[in-house]
Order: sequence, then C-alpha cells, then structure tokens
Amino acid sequence: MPRLDESAAGVYIISVTPFTDDGAIDYPSTDRMIEFYLERGATGLTVLGMMGEAPKLSGAEAIAFSRHVVHRVAGRVPVIVGASSPGFAAMRELSVSVMDDGAAGVMIAPPGTVRTDDAIFGYFRTVAETIGDIPFVLQDFPQASGVQIAPAVIRRIVDALPSCVMLKHEDWPGLNKITYLRDAPNMRRISILTGNGGVFLPEELRRGADGAMTGFAFPEMMSGVLAAHRANDAGRASDIFDAYLPLARYEQQPGPGLAVRKYILAKRGAIASAAQRTPRSTLNAQEIAEVEFLLARQTRRLQEIGA
Amino acid sequence: MPRLDESAAGVYIISVTPFTDDGAIDYPSTDRMIEFYLERGATGLTVLGMMGEAPKLSGAEAIAFSRHVVHRVAGRVPVIVGASSPGFAAMRELSVSVMDDGAAGVMIAPPGTVRTDDAIFGYFRTVAETIGDIPFVLQDFPQASGVQIAPAVIRRIVDALPSCVMLKHEDWPGLNKITYLRDAPNMRRISILTGNGGVFLPEELRRGADGAMTGFAFPEMMSGVLAAHRANDAGRASDIFDAYLPLARYEQQPGPGLAVRKYILAKRGAIASAAQRTPRSTLNAQEIAEVEFLLARQTRRLQEIGA
Amino acid sequence: MPRLDESAAGVYIISVTPFTDDGAIDYPSTDRMIEFYLERGATGLTVLGMMGEAPKLSGAEAIAFSRHVVHRVAGRVPVIVGASSPGFAAMRELSVSVMDDGAAGVMIAPPGTVRTDDAIFGYFRTVAETIGDIPFVLQDFPQASGVQIAPAVIRRIVDALPSCVMLKHEDWPGLNKITYLRDAPNMRRISILTGNGGVFLPEELRRGADGAMTGFAFPEMMSGVLAAHRANDAGRASDIFDAYLPLARYEQQPGPGLAVRKYILAKRGAIASAAQRTPRSTLNAQEIAEVEFLLARQTRRLQEIGA
Amino acid sequence: MPRLDESAAGVYIISVTPFTDDGAIDYPSTDRMIEFYLERGATGLTVLGMMGEAPKLSGAEAIAFSRHVVHRVAGRVPVIVGASSPGFAAMRELSVSVMDDGAAGVMIAPPGTVRTDDAIFGYFRTVAETIGDIPFVLQDFPQASGVQIAPAVIRRIVDALPSCVMLKHEDWPGLNKITYLRDAPNMRRISILTGNGGVFLPEELRRGADGAMTGFAFPEMMSGVLAAHRANDAGRASDIFDAYLPLARYEQQPGPGLAVRKYILAKRGAIASAAQRTPRSTLNAQEIAEVEFLLARQTRRLQEIGA
Repeated sequence: MPRLDESAAGVYIISVTPFTDDGAIDYPSTDRMIEFYLERGATGLTVLGMMGEAPKLSGAEAIAFSRHVVHRVAGRVPVIVGASSPGFAAMRELSVSVMDDGAAGVMIAPPGTVRTDDAIFGYFRTVAETIGDIPFVLQDFPQASGVQIAPAVIRRIVDALPSCVMLKHEDWPGLNKITYLRDAPNMRRISILTGNGGVFLPEELRRGADGAMTGFAFPEMMSGVLAAHRANDAGRASDIFDAYLPLARYEQQPGPGLAVRKYILAKRGAIASAAQRTPRSTLNAQEIAEVEFLLARQTRRLQEIGA
Repeated sequence: MPRLDESAAGVYIISVTPFTDDGAIDYPSTDRMIEFYLERGATGLTVLGMMGEAPKLSGAEAIAFSRHVVHRVAGRVPVIVGASSPGFAAMRELSVSVMDDGAAGVMIAPPGTVRTDDAIFGYFRTVAETIGDIPFVLQDFPQASGVQIAPAVIRRIVDALPSCVMLKHEDWPGLNKITYLRDAPNMRRISILTGNGGVFLPEELRRGADGAMTGFAFPEMMSGVLAAHRANDAGRASDIFDAYLPLARYEQQPGPGLAVRKYILAKRGAIASAAQRTPRSTLNAQEIAEVEFLLARQTRRLQEIGA
Repeated sequence: MPRLDESAAGVYIISVTPFTDDGAIDYPSTDRMIEFYLERGATGLTVLGMMGEAPKLSGAEAIAFSRHVVHRVAGRVPVIVGASSPGFAAMRELSVSVMDDGAAGVMIAPPGTVRTDDAIFGYFRTVAETIGDIPFVLQDFPQASGVQIAPAVIRRIVDALPSCVMLKHEDWPGLNKITYLRDAPNMRRISILTGNGGVFLPEELRRGADGAMTGFAFPEMMSGVLAAHRANDAGRASDIFDAYLPLARYEQQPGPGLAVRKYILAKRGAIASAAQRTPRSTLNAQEIAEVEFLLARQTRRLQEIGA
Repeated sequence: MPRLDESAAGVYIISVTPFTDDGAIDYPSTDRMIEFYLERGATGLTVLGMMGEAPKLSGAEAIAFSRHVVHRVAGRVPVIVGASSPGFAAMRELSVSVMDDGAAGVMIAPPGTVRTDDAIFGYFRTVAETIGDIPFVLQDFPQASGVQIAPAVIRRIVDALPSCVMLKHEDWPGLNKITYLRDAPNMRRISILTGNGGVFLPEELRRGADGAMTGFAFPEMMSGVLAAHRANDAGRASDIFDAYLPLARYEQQPGPGLAVRKYILAKRGAIASAAQRTPRSTLNAQEIAEVEFLLARQTRRLQEIGA
C-alpha cells in the first residue's frame, strides 16, 4: 500500500466501530459500512479515531479491527489508524503493527498534560522518534485534548519532522489557523483535512483545506460540498452544506453525538446495530423524535435544491 | 420597576457594550441599540454579560452604563445586569447599585475554581446571602466557566434559594438537562432562557425553555422562532431558524464571534462603531467576506420563505 | 494468595519500574529492589502506579512485569497493580490477568473527563462492573487526575461497591477528608493509605489513616513513623519524619521527583540504573549536588536522633 | 518614593489583610502588622496578593487599604500592590491610584484563559501598554493560575518590556527555571523573588534568587535563611530552614493555609483577629492541635540550633 503523504486530499471518513448488541466487534457490519462510506464519496478511511470508541478496545482488538479494515478496503483508498496513547510503548506497538498490515499512516493527538510551545513540539518530536518513518497526522482538537497549539508551533513541527504529512484541523475558532499555514513562507505544504463534524467545511475549503476528515453520517455532504468547491461553485457548495447543517449541528454534540451518528448509520443500513460499548450514550424518545424531525426536513430540503 | 421572577419568558437580548473608536462608552449608540433590540422583539435586556465586555469596564463605568440603560429603557422591559465577579464584595456593590437604579435582577456564573456538587451549591448559597433578596439568574455555561453543574445540583439550588428565579441555560449538550428540570417532581418552576448564540433554540423550546437569552445580531430570529413555537408551528419555527443558522453558527465562534456581532450591528445601524476595548478581536478581509457571503445568502433565503 | 480487603494496613511501597540503560525492563534489579523494600519495612507492594512509568510499558510488558513481581514476592506481602486506563477493555484485561497471577488487588484513578458527583460515582460503578469482584483501591489524587472527589462521593462509592476496599488518599489539602471518612456514621470501614510522597504522614496517621502507600526512596521513613505512631509516641514519629522531610519535599517535585527517587535507589543499591524510558527526566549537576547535600544532612540528623 | 527596579532583593512579605470579627478592614491591626513584619526582617511589603484576600475587597476598599499601608510604611521599605484583574480597566485604575499614593510597583498574574507562548507574551505586552511605565512584577504561579509560562517566554517578556523588573517565582518544580534565567546570555538581569510559602528557599537562593516574596507567618525564617546564605553559610541556612519546614509545609496547604497563617499571626500579636471574609476557611479543633504541636516542636528545635 502507498503511504500517506502531503498530497492527500478528499474525504477521509472517521469510521465508527460497529458492535453487536452484546458488545462484540461486528465484522459483517464493518464490511457493509466500508462499502457504504466508499459509495458515498470517501477517498480515505480513518479508524480508531475519537468517535471510533478506540479506548474501549483492548490492544489486541484494536490491532485485529484495523487489520480487518485494511484487508477489506484492499487498497481502494488509504486507511489511517488513530494511535494516540498515554504511553509511547503502546503507540509504537499499534503503529508498527497496522503499518505492517498495510495502513497508510497513523493519527496522533497530544495528551492534555503538555502545555507550553516547547512541550508540544517536544511531544511530537518524541512521537516521530518513537514511530520512526511512519507518516503521521497531527490531530489538533483543543476542545477534546485541552491542548492549544499555536499556528507557529504547527509550522515548527512540520519544519522539523518530515513524517508529519497531514493536519487534522479541528480547532475552534480555527479558520485563521488554516490561512496562517497556507500563507507561511517557505513552509512545506502538508495536507490539511478538517474535522469538527464538518460544520465549517465551506469556509475551511475556501481557506485552503484539502478536504474533510470527519464522520458525519451523511458522507455525501462532505463529498458534495467538496465537489462543488472544486468546481468553483461556492453557492452550490453552501446550498448543499446548509441543507445538512441543522442535522450536522445536532450530531456534533459531545456525548449524544455518537449515538445520533450510529442511529442514522443503522437506519441507513450501514451497520446492523447502534450499540456502543460502555461507557455508552443511547438516544431517548425525545432525541429520536428530534433526529427524525431533522431527517425529514433534510430530505425535503435536499429535494428542493436538487441534491 | 418590578423585579424578575419565575414567570419571565420571551427574548432577553444579551446586549453588547458600544464603544467609540477611541474606547469611550458610546452612549448615543447605546440608546439607538436599545430601540433596535426592542423593535425586533426583545422582551428583556441583559447588560454586562460575557459578550458585553464587562471586565473591560471599571467598577464605576459598569454602574454608570447599567444605570444609563435602565433609565433609557424606562420600564418598557426588564433589565438584568451581569454581576459575576471573582469576589463577593464587588458582586454585592454592583448588584445593590443596579437594583437601586431599577434593574430587575442580576446574573451570576460561578468561578472556575468550584468543582464538586457541594462546592457549587455552597457558592450559590453564598451568592444569595451576599446579595440578599435580589433575584438572580444562574448562568450555566460550562464551556466558558469550566464548571459542570449536574441537573440535580440546579434543582438543589432552586429548592434552597428562593431568589434564584431563572436559569440561563447554555450547557452543551444540554437538551436533556432542560427536560430533567421540567420533569423534576415538586420542583419550583423557574424560568429557563437559553443561550449559546441560539443554535439549539427550536429544540430547547420544545423541551420546555421559556425563551432565549442570547445576543445574535438578528434578534428577529429568536423572536420569530419563539412566535412560531408558541403558535405550535414547529415547521415554521425551523424554517426561520434554518435560514439564520449558517450565520448564527459563524457568529458563535469564541473570539471572532463578538467582532462578527458588532460588525453586523454596526452595519445594521444599531451602533456607530464595531470597536472593542482591549483585548479586542477585529475582522480581517477574509472574515468580512465570509460574513457578507452569509448575509447575502441569508437575505435571499428569508425572502424564499417569506420571513 | 489472599485478596486485598478492608483490613490492609502498613507500608505499601509504590514501586518504581527498573530499566536498563538501553530501556529494557531490568528484572535482576526488580528482584533486588523487592528485597530492598521488604527489608525496610514494606508490608505491601504497588506496581504500575503513576511513579511506576506504567504508560511506558506495552500491554504485554505490564502483564509480564506484574507477574514477575508477584512470583518473586511469593506471598510474603500483597501486591497491588495499577490498572487505570482510558478504556475499560484494557482495564479488565490487565486486572483479570494479574489476579490470575496472584495479585491481591488493583488500583484505579478516574480519568480527567469525569466531573460531577454523579459522573464520578458512575465511573467507579462501571469499574466495579467491569472487573467483577476483584478488590480495588480508589486512588484520589486530584493534583494529577484533575478530578475533585468530595468526601460524600467516596462514602457513596464505599456504600454501593463492596469491592472498593481501600482509599489511596492523596488529596491536598486532605486531612479533613480522612476525618470525615473515619467519623461517617454507619460507613463500612475501609483501609486508608496515604500517598503524596508521605509529606503529611504524621498528621494523616493521627487522623485515622492505616499507613502509607508511597514510594519515597527511604521506606524506613514510613515504617519508622508508623511504628512510633503505633507505639503512641507522637514525638518520636515527628522526630523521624522531620529528619527525612527536607529530602521528601525535594523528591515530591513532579517531573524531576522520579529522577531523584531512582537516583537514590540506585545509589542505595536497590536498582542498577536510574534510567527511565521516554519521556524521561534526568538530574543535572546542580540537582545532584542538591540531593547529595540533603542526603548528607539527613544522615547526620538521623544520627543525632538515634534513628 | 523610589520605584521598584531590577535591583530589588531581600524579603518582601506577602501581607495578609486584617479584618475585624464583623468583616471590616482592621486598620489598627494593619499598623501593628506592618511593624511586626519590619521588625522581623521584611525589606518590602506586598499587599493584595493571592493570600491577601484581594477579591474580597471592593475596588474602593482595595485603593483605601493600599493607601493606608503605603502611608504607614512611610518610605521605610517599598510597597508592591497586587493588581491582577479579569479586565484591564480595573487593573489600570488600581495601578495608577496606588502609584499616585506612593507604591513602588504592582504585581500581575495572567488569567487562566491565556495558553500559548504568544498569548502569554501578548497578555503581558498589553499589561505594559495598559499601565504605562509603572514597574511590574510578573507572578508565575501555575498551580494557582493554570498558566504554564516557559522560561523562554519569561525571557521574551523581559527583553521586550522594560517595565517588567521582577519575577515572583513560584512554579513547581521551578529550580531549573531560575537557573535558565540566570544563565540566559545577554538577558537583562531582573530581580527574582520566590514564593510558594518558602518551602524551596535554600535551593532557590543557591540557584540565583535574590530573596523571598511570601507570607509565612515567621518572617524570621526567610530573613534568617537569606542572611546565612549571604554569609555563605549553606549549613546554617538549612539548619534554620529545616527547623521551620514542618510548619511551613502545613501552612502551605491551599485553603486552610490562610487560616493557619492568620491564626499564628493573631497568636503572635501581629493582628487582633484571624477573621477572614467570605469565602473563609477556619481551623477546627484538630487543625489547631496540629498547629500547636508543630509550634511547640519548632520552638524547641530553634532553641537547639540557637536560632
């Protein structure tokens, strides 16, 4: 498999991890879900991300699930594996294993304990030393990690560490960070894919992002917005985006958001069950009614705009 | 002036504080802004909130500005004054002063240092002891305060402190917290107004909120959604909401959000200048272009739906 | 091996994990260190605690190291294994494995994301459900975990979860928390061992703690203070404590503290090398001079008091 | 009065704010306390620091109390006033007022919201712009402020802002930060006084600190250690320090620590009452017994060493 590099672009879906109702990894659903994602425009997959319930898998399960996905995808698109860990031994173990299996790269977020610019840089330098020449994605998600990474620190990491080939951008507010990185003189151009449920995707693309890496249950939103953007049709991009925004906003809620996502994926037939492992969130009747209300409006609005 | 009580409902606008370009409080703009808010459906005003640049005013300025607003409003709607403070002496001083001037109540958020359920409850008990029988709004905004208040703790505060008459709800996710409070058996029914830029307003109203307390630069969104909700027209409420959502989402960004709000208020003629006091955020050319793009689309969409 | 229960008392040493200079686990040093600890009064051992560099071991290494220690100790004292983890799957895997090998129990600290009283209680209830009837130690260390656990919440955990048999107390300030738990009417009496480098040990014992669980490089401090306390000789307990306090204070520093501890253990012959795995702290010349200055004074003072 | 400059050295006592039992500022006690501090070796006073209950004073009270202290000290030693504030208007108002009254400088800690190196530097640049040429002390106390300031950032502040003349160092661990600043080539040499209750004072002085700025209830500890240090008698410095350390450690506890400090100051006759304003900590019977036990031992030990 080709390794991830700075030219990566498009829609990398943050994959959920399907479970059966009794908590086992649901491999048949995994296979179905992969096809679901690819049919709706995914040009890459990211497994074991924050919305992939990674900490709920044992080390052996994480390796087995990643391997299964890589084999099933069979080179059609690159697979990135989330390898953030409180310790470098586990990070290395998982990273080496999944690369041997054919993954394209790994994704790493810093632990909440690193604070100063130097400490953040030092952390990623150690990451690069630990995983060798494995290409990695720097995940910049302060709302979840608690770590504020200044634009100049990202630049410093990119300058010093050639194996850092992509930024998963989900700082908020973060638009000017993208512009900073795109305008930085003499900086190696890395790939920037954006997360946060996609709720700033049109603006992010116009600022210079190369695509999206997020797991909104309608991948066609991200692929549709990106296609219109590439066709220089900002109005069309926003028409599509706006049609999905009320639901994307609802799915972006921390906690219930994953339950919403799995509920919709199950409803759409991508996975058999919305089950999560403990600690789990489940939708109550009011939440289901709210989702269904939003889904019905979304369907109607998409018809109105011919999408 | 009547004091705030549990029956409060409607749209309480979180007012900005207008400044001239050289940093003085702009009282003529303040007067204009008040009429702007009232004409667009505000049924209450809240000054010196987090988006009111309160810490940038000296103690004397805070008292003078609040007094000016109360006098100008002249009893047409209630005025609430933000009185959160690192210390109780300043909180008491401001609260007593503004009530003497005719304010309806004060709003208090806890400092980031209180953590356990008992500590949070104890903090608000001391608030109530400090300000006596002045009615107060409990501001529950964990993303800004760092304090997670469990629903049962809000209930405990309401049960013990009769002067707590309103919840400014802006937890995220927070819909089930509203439901908990509305369904809690034998709990005194307090007013619940919701914040967070209004980006969950339709769902919050259906969960039992009494209205909105937020400062989105189009108060007609909040008043329009509320009117449709009260007319039992959920579809219309969402039509209006959805038309404004792309901009509301953009204005909700921490940091640049206030610059966006003041830019639009100035453009709409409510205030003379978008100036902020230090530390300030200002819009760059890209941000202005993004706002104008969203404004143009919003205008068009509002026409389409006849709003 | 007998399982840990509420009667546990004495000095449980938080063991370091010895490494060779090239980063391998140093098993010969481990054996020597165990005897070193036992000869100086340890009545229990805790491995893979926060000062045991647990996150730097892979899952397989953690299991192998714990097994080695349990086998080497061979039932002379109970062995507790730190099993805190971002996910329940890994926690269960490690816990079950080490108990099969003969450990006496596991120790769990909450992740920084749990905040309210209910969330903290819910976390430990899930812990108990996850590891079944394995006895566990609740580690209460807010300075490291970021989680403030109110005394009433500890009581609630103890009341509801019979497998919680011990509190590792290291809140700061925390003396009144011990008193609360000892005076709580009708509360099951659990074991309380105290951490924090032992720097409040005399007061903690007088408040009702059953001993110490910490890793200060002079275990004879903890065993000496405890013996004098049990002999009702508060003056003697403080004489011994005060002699060690200047060094204990120095070793308690986060970051360099572990390097100080390993430096002294190596100097005392307990382990072959002070090496740490990445991320590591090492002592510079000034720090070594400071430690040696304190060691020389400590030796002299111990002679003066005949200890 | 001369203004504070980089040559400041010695013992600057962090003053408590004396209150009567009914909560008024106790000015007669304030006068007595000033003499108490000066007689025991204080070469400077700092009022309205974190242990001075500053947030519990109204703006007018803070100005009045500072003025009273400055007038009473009457030029015998410099007086520094804590002016940290959530907003720049209040910071400027207090700073200008106390300098007009004859204070030597002000002390500023950053708010918890500033995170990256650039944001921290930017904050202090705005401080310097706000208060003009008033000399200021940068308070570096991460345990209380939540802000980690890298040594290189302090250097950058010192290089850029000539009005920054002193560092109140209380990072923990922080010894190597002092060394960094003392060894930094071509860096303006500022004054470094150390806080944290004085519990690392001997090491800090040997690393290059110019003295202490802390409020331990026995100022003779700080002045005695400093005198011995200046006489190149490290052994004597540590003898004195070690005699006080058990109590200094106990007084350093957050929360009860201030109650301990005021209890001892009242017992020593420096102030009439240990009363605090709300939120207050008070000593229970066990805490009083612990303090008295430590005081008795301290007296005995000081006699033994002839101090």
